[in-house]
This record gives sequence, C-alpha cells and structure tokens, in this order.
Amino acid sequence: MPITMYDLAGSDSDRRFSPFCWRARMALAHKGLAVETVPWRFTEKDKLPAPNEGRVPVIVDDGKVIHDSSAIAEYLERQYPDRPLLFGGDTARALTRFVQNWTETVLQVGLIRFVVLDIYRHVGPADQEYFRRSREARFGTTLEEVVKDREARLPAFRASLDPLRRTVERQDFVAGAAPGYADYIVFGAFQWARSVSEFELLAADDPIAAWRGRMLDLHGGLARQTRAYGG
Amino acid sequence: MPITMYDLAGSDSDRRFSPFCWRARMALAHKGLAVETVPWRFTEKDKLPAPNEGRVPVIVDDGKVIHDSSAIAEYLERQYPDRPLLFGGDTARALTRFVQNWTETVLQVGLIRFVVLDIYRHVGPADQEYFRRSREARFGTTLEEVVKDREARLPAFRASLDPLRRTVERQDFVAGAAPGYADYIVFGAFQWARSVSEFELLAADDPIAAWRGRMLDLHGGLARQTRAYGG
Repeated sequence: MPITMYDLAGSDSDRRFSPFCWRARMALAHKGLAVETVPWRFTEKDKLPAPNEGRVPVIVDDGKVIHDSSAIAEYLERQYPDRPLLFGGDTARALTRFVQNWTETVLQVGLIRFVVLDIYRHVGPADQEYFRRSREARFGTTLEEVVKDREARLPAFRASLDPLRRTVERQDFVAGAAPGYADYIVFGAFQWARSVSEFELLAADDPIAAWRGRMLDLHGGLARQTRAYGG
Repeated sequence: MPITMYDLAGSDSDRRFSPFCWRARMALAHKGLAVETVPWRFTEKDKLPAPNEGRVPVIVDDGKVIHDSSAIAEYLERQYPDRPLLFGGDTARALTRFVQNWTETVLQVGLIRFVVLDIYRHVGPADQEYFRRSREARFGTTLEEVVKDREARLPAFRASLDPLRRTVERQDFVAGAAPGYADYIVFGAFQWARSVSEFELLAADDPIAAWRGRMLDLHGGLARQTRAYGG
C-alpha cells in the first residue's frame, strides 16, 4: 500500500509549495517509495490524521502517522535501511543539521521576503485571510511592504548564499557525488519560491542554478512536474 | 619520529594565531600523533620545506612534505585510518566542506574586521610592515579604520552565527556527539581571534561560547596552552 502524504497545496491543487513538504517528498522519492499525496490547505487542520501539530507534512505508512519533516526523514531512514541512505551515518546526520540550521536561519528567512506576496496570491481563497493575517503579524507590516524593495535586496541575498554556492561549484551535490537529505533541505526552499513566483532569485550563470537544475532532474524529474514557474 | 609542523607565530613565539594552522594542530591531536611545531613568521618564506605555497601550515611526516590545511586533513585520514576519524565517510566529508565554506565566507570574513588590528600588534617586528601593507591593500583602508566601528557591528556579527549557534545548542559538537574536522575548522577561526584579541566576540551565555569551552578542553586542553586571551 502506498504511503499517504498530506501536502500543502495552493488554490490550484497541483501547486505544492511548502519547503518542508518538499523535503519529505524528495526523501520519499530517494527511498523509492510509492506515495499518494493529499492536497491540503492551511485552514484544513481537522483533516489531518492524528497525531499532528496542525502542519504538514504528515505521512501515513502502514497505519503509522508521522508528522514533521525531520521526524519523517528519521523514520524513513530507520524503517527502510536497505534503500538508498538519506544521511549516511551519524556524523553526516549531525552535519546535515548544520545545513538545516543554515537553511532555516539564512536561506528561508531571506527568501520569504521575496516571495511572500506571491504565496498569498496562490493560496486557496479560504486560506488567504488566514495567511495574510498570520504573516503580517509576524512581519509587523503588510505583505506588499515586505516585498516592495526586493530588487534592491537581491545582491545581498545572493551574497548570503556564498556557502552554498562555493559548495555546489566544487561538488555536484551538498552531500557530495550523490544527493542526500541535506540537498533536499536546501532544495525545498528553492522549490517553495519556484512554485509560486516568477521572480528570478538566481543569476542564470550561478552555480546554484546549475545545482537546482540537477535537483529538478532527480527521481524522474519529480520536482519539475509540480505546477511552478521557469528555472 | 614526531611530525614537524610549521606554525604561524607572533612576536611571542608561543602566540600561535593562524586559523588554518589551528585546524591542522587540532587534527593532529585528534589522531593522537606526536608533533613538534616550528614557529614561523609571514616573512620567512625561505624557511619552509619544499614544496609549499609560501604559507602555513606545512607538515613533514617521515620525510613527506604536505602543505595546506585541507590537504593535511586528507593526508592524515588516509595515512592513519586506524586512528580516530576526522571525517567519518564520504558524505560527512562533503558536508564538512559546506561547514568550511560557511566558515570562510561568513565567519572568518566577519571576524577579521574585529581583530585585524590586534593581529598587527602581535605579529613579529619583521612582519608588521608586510602585514599592514598587504591587509590594507585588501581592505582598501587602514587597519585602524577597519576595526573602528567594531562595537556597532557586533550585533550583526553575532546574528550571522545563528546556523552555528542553533547547531551547538542542540548537539555537543558540529560533527555530533564527538568532535570532527568540521569542529576544528570552525574552532580555528575562534582561536585566531582569541589568540590575539581581548575583544569579546560572544556573549557569556551564548551556546557558541559553551561549545568553544568544550573545544578548549579537548586533547588535554591543547588550545588553552597557547598564549591567548580569556574565553
């Protein structure tokens, strides 16, 4: 029986834009597991299987419910140890956390200020009010104000990606010659942007754009098949 | 026969302040290898064994000369595979490069602007003219100007350490339960600052300060025994 995964969707249910869901989606594909995704919206908290924290991803595998992208990755590695490894040992797992912490404190924090209005435009009608209210409370200003100067912020944002740039310039993937969970964490952030926004975050000749292309090619082009923009 | 390591020193030859030399020094200690260090100054290019690139660290092990901190780490792992591992596998090695790239594009780039004048004050008299000229050319201004507003820059610098902070708040070392080469890379930068400067880069209750304390305790307190300031 395939694994079921609850996956954040926009008003178009083929638009899957959660960076955390993309981590899980790519991890499931890495393990070669069959998945049926259920499109889910922010305001459908009561539709998730228990236990959950009102957020996705949540997966159901053979009756077991696992929520939170990190817990899902750990579960998959433990439950399917004979399939391709996501981490490759305890040291790699620990170092992956550094990549995750960089992604969550630098990359995602920078990215949201470019695409938050585009996310708003793509979430379902029932979610728009919730999304605007919760995000405007977080930023302390309107979504329109948050993104207003994004062109001017682009050089600094691109510079903040230097650790990633230098890494994927010198090796095909963050995890080395083959992709690992560290790649899926970073890629989730770019796929989040790409799925809702036409804004060009990366210069065409940026080594990170080439890496993103390699990520989009993985697992039969899985991440290209979702509704998204260019790149 | 112990390994010989050429190690950057100040006017006081017990003051060892190169971040790259600290990587090698800690890696040698991690492997439990006996080392004799030779204090070396920037202007003593002709005193290094060949081949070299006019920089330290350079080690000589059983007649073999290895230069460059990354090459030394790779050499030690290959040559002494039965001793404690620095990397722990190919994926961990690849992910360590991400930590290295973060250290070199964020941490060290930020740090130098706090301590470059302190370095100048501690390098040997023969090195001072060289150091000032080469660093002022790099910064396009005087060393005094570079550090002038360092108090004002401290909050942004500390914020830039969030990926590291979040990591060592949740696990003892960057590499997990035990230190690895990734820790030595990051620690080298802090030891660079600590060996020449009284300036408090970290708040006392910063989880990074606690991690630095754990690093200073390693290998019989090796890094505490060099001439340095507080912390």
